[in-house]
Amino acid sequence: MSTLKLVIGNKNYSSWSMRPWVLLQHFGIPFEEHMVRFDGFTPDSAFKQRMAEISPTGKVPALIDDGFTVWDTLAIAEYLAERHPEHPLWPRDRLQRARARSLCAEMHSGFGALRSHCPQNIEASLPEVGQRVLQEQASVRADLDRLQALWCEALASSGGPFLFGAFGIVDAYFAPVVGRLRTYALPVNTTVAAYMDRVWASPGVAAWVSEALAEQEYLDFEEPYRKHR
Amino acid sequence: MSTLKLVIGNKNYSSWSMRPWVLLQHFGIPFEEHMVRFDGFTPDSAFKQRMAEISPTGKVPALIDDGFTVWDTLAIAEYLAERHPEHPLWPRDRLQRARARSLCAEMHSGFGALRSHCPQNIEASLPEVGQRVLQEQASVRADLDRLQALWCEALASSGGPFLFGAFGIVDAYFAPVVGRLRTYALPVNTTVAAYMDRVWASPGVAAWVSEALAEQEYLDFEEPYRKHR
Repeated sequence: MSTLKLVIGNKNYSSWSMRPWVLLQHFGIPFEEHMVRFDGFTPDSAFKQRMAEISPTGKVPALIDDGFTVWDTLAIAEYLAERHPEHPLWPRDRLQRARARSLCAEMHSGFGALRSHCPQNIEASLPEVGQRVLQEQASVRADLDRLQALWCEALASSGGPFLFGAFGIVDAYFAPVVGRLRTYALPVNTTVAAYMDRVWASPGVAAWVSEALAEQEYLDFEEPYRKHR
Repeated sequence: MSTLKLVIGNKNYSSWSMRPWVLLQHFGIPFEEHMVRFDGFTPDSAFKQRMAEISPTGKVPALIDDGFTVWDTLAIAEYLAERHPEHPLWPRDRLQRARARSLCAEMHSGFGALRSHCPQNIEASLPEVGQRVLQEQASVRADLDRLQALWCEALASSGGPFLFGAFGIVDAYFAPVVGRLRTYALPVNTTVAAYMDRVWASPGVAAWVSEALAEQEYLDFEEPYRKHR
């Protein structure tokens, strides 16, 4: 097998890039990282011009396997699961796998309020923003309620420590959400808090977070709340 | 195997319901349809109250297999593909399957401008609205450009008649988009126009459209443009 190449954006900001990177890292699947730094998302930005050469959507992440490009996080996850049947990327059980896919698909198209009001910013600590957003935005409160219900139900059903037992695609999918809840200090119950700690300490996630913290970059177009680092 | 139950919304309006219904119908997989009519999307609507009993997201579609619920269209598609390996729901080729999943995932989370400005309304004919939206909204023009590029690339690569040869999940996924382009008479090239005609004439899609036209309902909260039928 050729070595996979994963094209990603800045680790501090790019939540979609984080998911497949964490997955590859967690399972020890060899890959080369290719970072295209964000400098803006207008058509004349270096980021968009470079990405136009790499992926038809012009977005990160993209996975390149021996010249073949797979785009969009969910398709990348499915591709990796098929390419590496030796790893339990999805639950082995058919029904559990269907449930895990339901959760990932819900995340993939949902939680829009949480995503837009609380954008990923791993290095930042913005508890006051979180408190204000939660007071003002009923839609964010609804997203948070649904998230907690979804996690608690899966953890109770599997027995943990991760959503379907061992760490898999679905945990990698929610890892950036864990980061948002941390950055904005959104209030969660103890079951969820303990799950968040386990996700943050898991090896793939911890490696990403460590590299995100090392970036030390401030991009104003990614920062609706801070004025500087 | 028990008979599948598919929970859907109104056929004229519910684009997400259309996808799995069309897929089941096209491949002749036996299923019972259970329609929960839209009467609004507020928490006290009959729709939301009924759906809260059926699916944890409170949304259509949901697939119920012997008491087990799968939600979200993409997870339902994957579940059906695993349950019915005798049908080529995904392309049989590994790389083509990855490409088809990339397209579905892109559709699943993307084309937001087209979806919000041109909501599904199969029975309506709104060419003036389409013309105005296209003039005013650069984001809709960008969505239309990307759609045409994506379809043309897939058709050229497979040779047609559908995106990956025979009709499959990816065509079912784009069927509601074909409906939007028809309703709003958005301008397309001849390759795309011919593909749209083939999709509209395919048996699963044609059956859905026929039943949508028979509904004869007018729901004001689904109608940003018309004042009456």
